[in-house]
Amino acid sequence: MKIAIDGMGGDNAPEAVVSGCIKALSEYNDIHLYVTGPEDELRALFEKNSYDKERVVFVNATEVIGTNEHPVMALRRKKDSSISKALNLVKEKKCDAVISAGSTGAFLAGCTLVIGRIKGIERPALAPIMPGKNGPFMVIDAGANVDVKPFYLTQFAKMGSIYFETVMEHTKPKVGLINIGEEAEKGNELTKEAYKLLKDEKNINFVGNVEPREVSKGDAQVLVCDGFVGNTVLKMYEGTALTILSMIKEEIMGSTMSKIGAVFMKSAFKSLKKKMDYTEYGGAPFLGVDGLCVKAHGSSDDKAFKNAIRQAKAFHDKKLLEKLKNGIKSS
Amino acid sequence: MKIAIDGMGGDNAPEAVVSGCIKALSEYNDIHLYVTGPEDELRALFEKNSYDKERVVFVNATEVIGTNEHPVMALRRKKDSSISKALNLVKEKKCDAVISAGSTGAFLAGCTLVIGRIKGIERPALAPIMPGKNGPFMVIDAGANVDVKPFYLTQFAKMGSIYFETVMEHTKPKVGLINIGEEAEKGNELTKEAYKLLKDEKNINFVGNVEPREVSKGDAQVLVCDGFVGNTVLKMYEGTALTILSMIKEEIMGSTMSKIGAVFMKSAFKSLKKKMDYTEYGGAPFLGVDGLCVKAHGSSDDKAFKNAIRQAKAFHDKKLLEKLKNGIKSS
Repeated sequence: MKIAIDGMGGDNAPEAVVSGCIKALSEYNDIHLYVTGPEDELRALFEKNSYDKERVVFVNATEVIGTNEHPVMALRRKKDSSISKALNLVKEKKCDAVISAGSTGAFLAGCTLVIGRIKGIERPALAPIMPGKNGPFMVIDAGANVDVKPFYLTQFAKMGSIYFETVMEHTKPKVGLINIGEEAEKGNELTKEAYKLLKDEKNINFVGNVEPREVSKGDAQVLVCDGFVGNTVLKMYEGTALTILSMIKEEIMGSTMSKIGAVFMKSAFKSLKKKMDYTEYGGAPFLGVDGLCVKAHGSSDDKAFKNAIRQAKAFHDKKLLEKLKNGIKSS
Repeated sequence: MKIAIDGMGGDNAPEAVVSGCIKALSEYNDIHLYVTGPEDELRALFEKNSYDKERVVFVNATEVIGTNEHPVMALRRKKDSSISKALNLVKEKKCDAVISAGSTGAFLAGCTLVIGRIKGIERPALAPIMPGKNGPFMVIDAGANVDVKPFYLTQFAKMGSIYFETVMEHTKPKVGLINIGEEAEKGNELTKEAYKLLKDEKNINFVGNVEPREVSKGDAQVLVCDGFVGNTVLKMYEGTALTILSMIKEEIMGSTMSKIGAVFMKSAFKSLKKKMDYTEYGGAPFLGVDGLCVKAHGSSDDKAFKNAIRQAKAFHDKKLLEKLKNGIKSS
């Protein structure tokens, strides 16, 4: 398969992106990478390593879209940006997938505007996978659509279910509506209406409302909500986890006794950190676009970027796009 | 001061409520408690302890509103419920404050319907105080108003600021708008509009958008948002903290080495748990009502309930209600 890589996206680009590509090339021998960005600079970085030159194509791009630029304006103005070039490779069917760790706004807007939606899909949705206590779970939408209609949430539910069945090989994934109360009549106008629609939806395993307090347990796999709430859930999860771990660290450093304890507990903390490590899951799929789109975390290191490539490959191998298209058509 | 106590509200009522009252009576000698509920049952529980009988009045109430009942319907139907009776004591100026650990929906609806709003306030807001890494912070609104107008958020900001100045004795508390992005133009229709209003508000120290990732740091004291988002933030914070602590516990139990470590770290964990203990802060004030209203956590134990009484006393001693009224009038 052929994957378009935004060579200049992310806090650690282009170095971490290039290292991630090198790692992926050596692990997966059936991928070809089309890397966009300043060709000479990228080539020089690649050539610091040994890699299969036949499987890398450099696509020159002289501009970069920053995270503080207005997404749609920047896309319009910077036709020669690394993101635009990568998106066009999928639009022109030269590549099957596109990955960027750059501006989330520009990447998502670009996926919809440049590549286009799957026929029948109202709004593509960002759907990161998070580590939960009892298993991974998806929050859909996690920030692409901040003002939504109830009907969109049923499409998010369908796409999330198909993703979990196809990529995670999960039979009958449980779909929950993120809501501030368990009962059907709880919530705001959006969730009350969405609850009714989800309840009547035949092709999903709807288990009702899931309160934010229960989210991190991971008992329901597909959690649907609007993009504002989804982004809040995602960032609260990351932020609180970091705060607690740093508070534990501070407490430990506060006394000799606990410093001694920490030595004994090192492996327990390490194992926990691995469980909580979002980079294990690669990037967040942007579902509903007529091409495979993966948004890697802005702070991705080489390992996270490699895992985003692994993920794009899994989507392709498992025919995610075809299954999404058929799923939407048949419903 | 006189405090109306919903004797039958909460998962552990009436036992934990009564124990909390007994503790508060012995600590604060200037409070009088009006306890609502089945008089004989409550009196029997009180009389298992020694307490100052002159400072307790039993107000008979034969009904209880459950957490699964429709709040407004239940209030209308159950005129003789412990919540209704407690609210009426404030309405009739027989008490200065009311505390309940019962149905949040019924209590909040009752505060507004029975006691009424402060003149000029559009919507009262639930404003719990949470422990943050660098200090406590308030989320306002945390669930009373799920569908709001931008203008409401400026009133939430003012009430929250007055609370932090008055009760927490914090000079110029920082006010942040919970939003999914730092820049002014980020967010949904509500937050974009609210940002403009908050920026122009003279009597608050607005510091701009605060991303959910930053919330738990506690660098901004007053965090404004709609009730759906606020409740999500609150419950994600509680849920994630619990999940992480239980994952650490599981990791520890997984090996002998870390079990040994845990012994040495016991005091560090204990100190962390105390820092994260929401019961330290008592209940959540419901601001904007023409009376002092405190919503204690549904799972309050006697200590949490006693702290809710301590909080109501602090509101009274520090003249919170007068300051809120003057603050709203002058703006």
